[in-house]
Order: sequence, then C-alpha cells, then structure tokens
Amino acid sequence: MPRAGDEQVTFQPMGRRADPQPGQSLLQLAQSAGVGIEAPCGGKGLCGKCRVRPEGRATPLTPAEKALLGPDTEQGLRLACQTALPQGGAVWVPPESRSQRQVILTSGASGELELDQTVRAYTVSVPPPSLERPEAARERLFSALSAVAADGLSDSPELPFSLLQRLPGLLAGGGELGLALRKGREIVSLGAAQQGPPLGLAVDLGTTTVVAYLCDLDSGKLLAVSSEMNPQVPYGDDVISRMSLCAAGPQELAKLSRAAVECINALAVDACAQAGTDPECILECVMVGNSAMHHIFLALDPASLAIAPYAPVVRGPVEIKARQAGLALGQEAWLHWLPLKAGFVGADIVAAALAVGADELDQPTLLLDLGTNGEMVLAAGGRMLACSTAAGPALEGGHIAQGMRGAPGAVERAALQAGAASTELRVIGGEKPVGFCGSGLVSLISCLLEAGILLPSGGFDPERGRGLVRPGANGREFLAAPSGATGHGRDLVLTSQDVAEVQLAKAAIRAGAEVLMAEMGVKQISQVLLAGAFGNYLDPGEAARIGLFPPVPVERILGVGNAAGVGAVMALLSQKQRVRAKKLAQAMGYVELSGHPLFQDLFVDSMAFPGGDA
Amino acid sequence: MPRAGDEQVTFQPMGRRADPQPGQSLLQLAQSAGVGIEAPCGGKGLCGKCRVRPEGRATPLTPAEKALLGPDTEQGLRLACQTALPQGGAVWVPPESRSQRQVILTSGASGELELDQTVRAYTVSVPPPSLERPEAARERLFSALSAVAADGLSDSPELPFSLLQRLPGLLAGGGELGLALRKGREIVSLGAAQQGPPLGLAVDLGTTTVVAYLCDLDSGKLLAVSSEMNPQVPYGDDVISRMSLCAAGPQELAKLSRAAVECINALAVDACAQAGTDPECILECVMVGNSAMHHIFLALDPASLAIAPYAPVVRGPVEIKARQAGLALGQEAWLHWLPLKAGFVGADIVAAALAVGADELDQPTLLLDLGTNGEMVLAAGGRMLACSTAAGPALEGGHIAQGMRGAPGAVERAALQAGAASTELRVIGGEKPVGFCGSGLVSLISCLLEAGILLPSGGFDPERGRGLVRPGANGREFLAAPSGATGHGRDLVLTSQDVAEVQLAKAAIRAGAEVLMAEMGVKQISQVLLAGAFGNYLDPGEAARIGLFPPVPVERILGVGNAAGVGAVMALLSQKQRVRAKKLAQAMGYVELSGHPLFQDLFVDSMAFPGGDA
Repeated sequence: MPRAGDEQVTFQPMGRRADPQPGQSLLQLAQSAGVGIEAPCGGKGLCGKCRVRPEGRATPLTPAEKALLGPDTEQGLRLACQTALPQGGAVWVPPESRSQRQVILTSGASGELELDQTVRAYTVSVPPPSLERPEAARERLFSALSAVAADGLSDSPELPFSLLQRLPGLLAGGGELGLALRKGREIVSLGAAQQGPPLGLAVDLGTTTVVAYLCDLDSGKLLAVSSEMNPQVPYGDDVISRMSLCAAGPQELAKLSRAAVECINALAVDACAQAGTDPECILECVMVGNSAMHHIFLALDPASLAIAPYAPVVRGPVEIKARQAGLALGQEAWLHWLPLKAGFVGADIVAAALAVGADELDQPTLLLDLGTNGEMVLAAGGRMLACSTAAGPALEGGHIAQGMRGAPGAVERAALQAGAASTELRVIGGEKPVGFCGSGLVSLISCLLEAGILLPSGGFDPERGRGLVRPGANGREFLAAPSGATGHGRDLVLTSQDVAEVQLAKAAIRAGAEVLMAEMGVKQISQVLLAGAFGNYLDPGEAARIGLFPPVPVERILGVGNAAGVGAVMALLSQKQRVRAKKLAQAMGYVELSGHPLFQDLFVDSMAFPGGDA
Repeated sequence: MPRAGDEQVTFQPMGRRADPQPGQSLLQLAQSAGVGIEAPCGGKGLCGKCRVRPEGRATPLTPAEKALLGPDTEQGLRLACQTALPQGGAVWVPPESRSQRQVILTSGASGELELDQTVRAYTVSVPPPSLERPEAARERLFSALSAVAADGLSDSPELPFSLLQRLPGLLAGGGELGLALRKGREIVSLGAAQQGPPLGLAVDLGTTTVVAYLCDLDSGKLLAVSSEMNPQVPYGDDVISRMSLCAAGPQELAKLSRAAVECINALAVDACAQAGTDPECILECVMVGNSAMHHIFLALDPASLAIAPYAPVVRGPVEIKARQAGLALGQEAWLHWLPLKAGFVGADIVAAALAVGADELDQPTLLLDLGTNGEMVLAAGGRMLACSTAAGPALEGGHIAQGMRGAPGAVERAALQAGAASTELRVIGGEKPVGFCGSGLVSLISCLLEAGILLPSGGFDPERGRGLVRPGANGREFLAAPSGATGHGRDLVLTSQDVAEVQLAKAAIRAGAEVLMAEMGVKQISQVLLAGAFGNYLDPGEAARIGLFPPVPVERILGVGNAAGVGAVMALLSQKQRVRAKKLAQAMGYVELSGHPLFQDLFVDSMAFPGGDA
C-alpha cells in the first residue's frame, strides 16, 4: 500500500490526500477531502459503519471501537470517526465503508402525459421604431410577442430587469429575437433568434440519492438523467442526524444546504453535457424531496420538523427564482418545490401520489415509500390518507450487524439450498458478499421463515437450522456465508438482534397501514404500490411473506420505481399536473401516528411474522 | 495660498488632495477627488466654464484655452479640462466654476391627497402549531394576517424567500410579529411586533439636482427632504453630454448609474437621519426623472434616446425590487418608476402633469418645465398633448458668456435705475455678482426691452443705452456691472450673442407651445404653470415680456414649484395616483417637433421679442 508524504493522510484506493488538523477525526478529514465514508450515525461512534484500516501512528482505540469492532480490531480495523492520524499516513477504506458506490435507481414507470408547458419558446420579429411610432423597445417586444403567443399574452406581461438591460444590445443586432415565455406572462430568456428548445430540470432530492431529469420542455422528451449520492450523507445518514447537525447553528444549515445545491448544479452540468447543451438553457426546475431535505435545501431552519407537532416552516408550494436558492441554471429560471403534506410526509410522497394518480384511484390502494423514511398513502374512492412511520433504518441495512446499502457486495436475494445445508446468495455487482442490503435481508428472512428455521416469534429454531444456526455474541445467529466465501474474510451472519430490528420496522409499517385502513373504514386492500429504490428491488412475495403490509394477492403488489421522480417530471412538463399536485396535497388527509389510540396495539400485534400458512 | 505636498494636487478652497495620474486633466482629477467643477460640455474644451487658477508647473496653454479665455489667461486662469499639473501643486477653483454650491429647490405646491397606501403595516399574533393542527409557519402567518388585513389578503399571498428564511427564528421568539403588506399580496417586511410605520421615499432624479422626500406611508406625512447636486454633473452638464459618455461603453454607463444610485442612497441616509429612522424602514420607493436620467439610473443603454426617432428602451412603469437597482433600502422594498411618455418627455413631466391634475383640467393650460430640458404639456378639456423643445441651455445660463447656474453670485433679478444710468442687480447669496443665471437673464432682457435699450429684433440701441452699451469682441454688449463691483474683478456684461441665445431658446419654447395649440385647436391659453426650479424663480411678468409663451394675463402665470417631486410623492402615497399616472401617460398625446410642418415657421416668427406694447 503506498504511503503518504510526511504529515499528510492519503485515502486509498481513491488516492485522495488531505492535511490532518488537530482534533480532527479521520471521518471529518475524509469529508473535508471529498471522500465518502458511510456514517449513518453522523460520526457519533454509535453505528460502527465507518470502518477503515489506517497505517501510521493512529490515536488509541476508544471504548466505542472496542465495543463495536470486537475482534476485528486485531485485523487493524478502526472506526474513522474515532481515529486520527496526527502525523499522517495511509488509510484503506474497504468497499463496504465507501458511500459513493451505491447503485442508484433512476428509471421509473411513466404513463401518458398531456403536455401543458409552463415555459414556451417563441421567435419574434421586433420592428424598429419610427418617427410616427417612436414606441419603446419593451413595448415593441410585447406587441410582437402578443402577435405570435399561442395562448395569448397576459395583460401585464413582465420582462425581468436583467433581460430589460440586455434588450437594447440585442435589438442593435436586428429585430429577430428568440425568447421563452413563462405562464404567458413573464419572459424568462431572451437572446438571438436561433435558440434551442427551453429545457427543464426535475430533481428528486432524496436523503440518500439525488436524481436529476433533464427534459425538453417543448416536446416533453427526457434528454438525460444524472444522479449522485446526496453529498450530505457523510454528515449523517438519516434526516434526524442532519437536522440535529443543523441545530448546531445557521452555518451548519448553510453548509448542508450548499452541499445539496452544489450537487444539483453538478448534476445539471452532467445532464446537459450528456445532452450536448448548457445549464443556462434550463429555464424551469421542479424539485421534490422529503420535508427535511426541502427545508435544508432552502436553508429553512428544520428545528420545528424534529419536535412534536412536527410543523414545517412552509407547506404549500415554494416558487422562487432558481438563483435565489443558489442554482446555476438560466439567469431568470424559476424553481418550483412541490408542496409538502406534513413534517414527515414530504413533497416526494406528494409527487409519488401524483405519479400513481392516487387522487383518482377507486380501489383501496396502499402506496408505500420504503426509502430512507417509511411514508405511506392509502387511497380509495378519490380519498387519500397519509402517515409516516418511525420504521427505522433496518430495511435499508441500518442497525443491522452486517447491514449495508444496495451497493456492490450487498446480498440482494437469498435462497436456501435443498435441505437447508447452505444458502445461495445473489450479490450486487457479482462480487463476494460483504453485507446485507434491505431486499437481501427481507429475502433471507422470508426463506428462513419458509424453511421453519426462523419462527413467527422471530427466534431461530436450532434444530431446523442445524449447522447454520449457532450461538453468537448476543443470542443465536444464522451463518449466511463462511469467511472463506465473503469479500471481507469474515463470516457473514444474520443475528437475532438483526431479526428483531426487521420485526420492529415491518411492525411499524404494517401498523401504520392498518391505522390508515381503520381511519378510512377500508377492510381489505386491493393493491400495494412499492415506490423508491428499495421497493423496486424487493421481491413482492417475500415482502408479503414477512408481513410487511396487510394481506393482498402477490400479483397485486407492484414496484412503481422512482415514483417521486416521475411525479416531479410530470409537474415539470405540465402546469395542470402542478395544480393537481397542490390540490392533491390539500385533499390528502394526514394521521399523526405518535399518540394515535390504535397504533401502539397494532404495532405490538404486528411484531410476529405471519405463520407458515399466511 | 497653501502649497500641496510633493506630487499631490490640492484643490482650494476645498482643501481636497489627489494624486495626479499621467494624461489626466485637472478636471478628471477633480472628479476623481469628488471636487465639483462646472463642465457643461463634458470636458471637451468647448464651453470654457471650468476655469481654475493652477499654481505649479502646468502643461502648456492649448488653442482651445487661448480661444475661450482670451486675455483672462494673463491672470493665470486655465481650463481644468485642458490643463494638468503632473508634478503636483495647488489649484484655486473660483466660485463661478464650483458646481456644488447651487441653490436647490425642494419645496413644492401640494394639494389635498386621498391616501391609498401601497404598503400597510399590521401586527399579527401567530398561534403555535398543535398535534391536531400541525400547520406550517407560513400558512399560520397567512391565516393570522387574513384575520386582521383591512382590505383583505390576496388569494395567493406571497412571502419573499429572504423573509421565509427568517420566519422560524422570529417565531422562536413568540408569535407576535410586525409586518408590512404590499398591495394586499406580498409581505415586504417582517420582524418583531413593535415596528415603526412603513416609510416611503419619492425621488426626483433631475439632470442637475436630486431631491428625495421621505414619507410616513401610514399617515402620508412628509418626514424629511434631502437634496444634492446630481453627482453626474461633473461628467457633463446636460443629458446629451452624459448620453454620449455612455456611448463609450457599458462601463461608462455603469459608472454614471452607480453615481446616481449612491447619491440616492446617501439622500436616504440623510433623510432618515433627519427623521431619526433608518433606510431599512423604507419599503417603497417611487422615482421620477427625464428619460435619460431614467435610462442611465437603470443602466439601460440610452443610445436610442439620442438618435431619431428617440425611442426609449422601456416607456411604461418599471417596477423592480429596489435592491436590483442597487438601492440600499428595505431588503424587500420595491422601486416604482413612473412611466415615460417619450424619449424627451420623461417621468418627471408625467409626474408634474399628475401634480397639477392635467388630466382633469378644463381650461387650456400650458404646463412648462423649464429645467435642464424644455418640455411642455398643453391640457384642455381632459385632453393632453406634450412636446419637447431643443431650447438649449441658455435659460439655465449655458452658452451665455457670463452665464451660470442659480448659485451664490448669480444675478437673479435686474432693474434699471431711473434714466438707465446704471443697473441694480439682485444677487443670490447677497454677494458681488459673478454671472447671470436664467431668471437674471430674463429679468435684465425684460428691463432693457422696457427701456428701449434692446430692440424687438434683439439688437442694442446705442443711443438709448448710452454709457452702458458699448462695442464688444463680437458686436455690442451691455455693461451690467463694472469690474470694481463684481466678484471676479471683471466687467459683467450681456453680449449681443447672449441675447441671441435667449432668443433661440424662447423662440423654441414659444413655437413648441403654438404647435401644441394648433394641434389641439386651442386659440387662447387660459393659464401657464411654470414647473421646476427655474420656473419658480422666474418673474411671470418678465417671462411674458420677453414672449417666452403665448400671451396670457400675468396673474394667470403661476409657479408650481417642483411639480415633478410633488407628483412622485402623490404616487408614493396612493396606488390610485400611480394608476392615474399610468393612464395619464397613455392618454397624453405626443408631438415630435423635429420635422413638424408648422414648427420651423413658428420658430422663425418667434425669434423677435414682442414690441413694447405686447
């Protein structure tokens, strides 16, 4: 392994160098150097995910490391958040600790969409003034535009100041101009006659992943998709960690906000490069995301989201000039955030509901977003009711001993060999397994239930699991792969504690769905729509097998992909859909589960897995 | 006279020091040091007004100086625009060359005005969110506001992004907030409950003078007035010089724009200091000025104003956030420019027409603005027609051998002693005379016509003027004060050329008025309203005596003060007046005099002064 120069720390295999500052952990140093290391707990020494192998004079082992790493410390493993290399050295970041290699879902189901453009392009011919009609340039421009504007020009058209200032220079080159008109009222770009079509950007700002869709606003065509890990991940894996970071002061909020803004700017550059165009041509941007991402992006103090009654700073649509938020798109481009529903039911859920047409669904349908947060909407007969469950991160691999995200090396599907003598694992990237992602966990638990190795109570049956179920540090554990077959050279196991974490998560989701059913008087769900990356990778039968949601025929469980992103694109391409999203958010009811009279009992009742006959 | 330090130039009596740069004239050096020196021609060596007396190794006399200064060069006088002191020294700036000592008119006639506030202040009590109603902060604010807003709140109220970002912090201090609402729709300030009233600023950006009126928008009370020379004056005295400077490139336009913006910011600070408040409390600004000032202030290329057909870049009202124009008022304050009528009929004329109620005048009334430009409006029976005359600067003392502005030392009124043996002069500031300002010129010419010393043709009668009329360098001249009685130690004379300049100016104005009468079919004017500083100082009888406008009884000639400023204040205090100003500008007709079939003949016919019986 190459050694770094004096005093410097080199992160491998990235080869990124950084100067350590006094008191700075390797995790902080990595973040400052742009090296993504998993840190779901935000660097508090709680999750044990930020494992690295330093070479050099590292600071002594902390009690947290001893507790979380156990015998792995003998192999030189440390937690980046607990370790420093004050005099420099090299740091190996193993694959399972790297946060930037995640597989990101960018495709989504999309139906037919009637275009109803917010921004339209026109070419106008502005006549010169004459002594008889010495009309002003702006007024001549508006006259010329009203003659060609398809849907008519507003009575009080607007030309932003920056474009007004450019108008004399543009007219000096002749009267043929190209422009883009927004909502029939405001000119949002003005230039020479030959312009490309106006472009739009729809952004799904996820807690974990940011996806940007570049569209031709004229044709509605999707030109490019670009996605990236949310650069806030190194500051904390979930919205709670990030909101608590923001509580440290406005500069922390500003830092997280800037990270998201710069990420989107980079995605816009990348998507435009793919399409052979320039971010300056982007004249409209629609954003969706959960309430915390919304607030942090807009640099709105998220403190009220984190404490009961979880009221947002703003719930309705936010429409501002994109540059006010720091987005480097067209100078006069607008940014439209779809509305939130509540503190824990964000614009992403509203967008997903729009994408699946929840406001028009007749048969009882459960829309479930199993991303970083666990939100759901029950729709039936035009009515909609939403809630958010504190499902915890287990279904994304969090709080799981060997859990990880859906990245290369993660087990995504499991099957027991005949006789349950060994386990066949499907691993993302075809590599040797290093951990479980959510779909792999659900898959393995489903198989173990099916084989009777795991009991409905959540306990392992040592008889049935002979040879694979063994005593572990905290109760029994199931050996999914021996050390010789794994990518990290350690046994890959599913612990009793892991099973309990999954039970807590699925019980919360199941209980939330049943509260919604009770509130709406729905006895039987006809359909389950699984949104988000996790939903897409999940096997519907396996999800039903563990009792993740109320009983429904397996063929009526559908993955709908990145529905939030699809909803954002719909709102980008159609004003009508944008209005519909606003109405949908207003019409949607919301149930606060904390303190709900039914929830606690239903939650306890849902802890057990369904029996083998379920 | 004190000497400056090595290499530096000291301007006296100001005591201002500056480092001369290679190739820089004393005029440019003075401008860079903030020393105001008269330069009506913009420093081109044409007007001969920037006389200074340098001490030190000055650059050699130029042909322009020899031609314009003649024997005065023997007294050490030089033209600042033609001279440099590369090795430093002192420069005496005589009173008649100083531009900052001008008397500025800030008072104006004001009638009764019905208040109709654009911005209203409210105190609201925002309830906290509850688990039952976890409403967002913005929505709770809007609900609280709609309960107290007198004229109701718009269906789509707006909270600007900067205020939205401040909302959580403000609510953390309790739910009592003070805010200001604009047009029932947009919150333009938000803070603690105890706020002062919202303030407004009306600005008359004149070519020569900038006046700012600070008003309490709640009561309509005028709190303070502050005025200053337009800091663009050192770059050129008239709009043509300044527009030709802008033609040199966008950085020149930006420089002039910034000068005006900074001047208004300083006036706002001064007016607020007088009233014991802060410019941040100014939430609305209304501006008026001629078309060139409008364009230059807004950094709109004024090139099209300077060439036929003199079309502006924008004619209708311009409404932008004040900060977009660089004004340092309230963060979300708006700036509203009243509309222009045409390239040479600006927002100042529209405002003056509003102030005198030109749209409701029944009897034929001529509104005449004798500021730096010569614009007029003929109003009768609700109709209005405007024109602009190329009157030239004679009536402001320009192109007059010993002309000057209305500053201390300027003759403002003249009377001939019995027998015409000598002339009694009233001088601004009570000093010894050093030149003629416009009202003094008109007064002296009127007296000379009355005494028969000046003939209707414009020639001097040497018989009648014996002892005072004498041969000069270019024809006869009238000795108004001998060298011993003047402030500069030279004879104060009115030359034949001076009289001819006044004839050209008054013929242009008179002919313009007669074109308007012909176009509107008005045979007889009932009333003349003189707006602007010059109009206020002019003696109505003397103005009529020289035939400045068509015949009208002397008692029907009224000075209306700074009518443009009054109109700006009206538009500041009342939305209705703002709407009225827009309608008035649209309803007003405009006659382009250049190329008008009647103008040339009427102009020639108006050159002579009326006979003694007029």
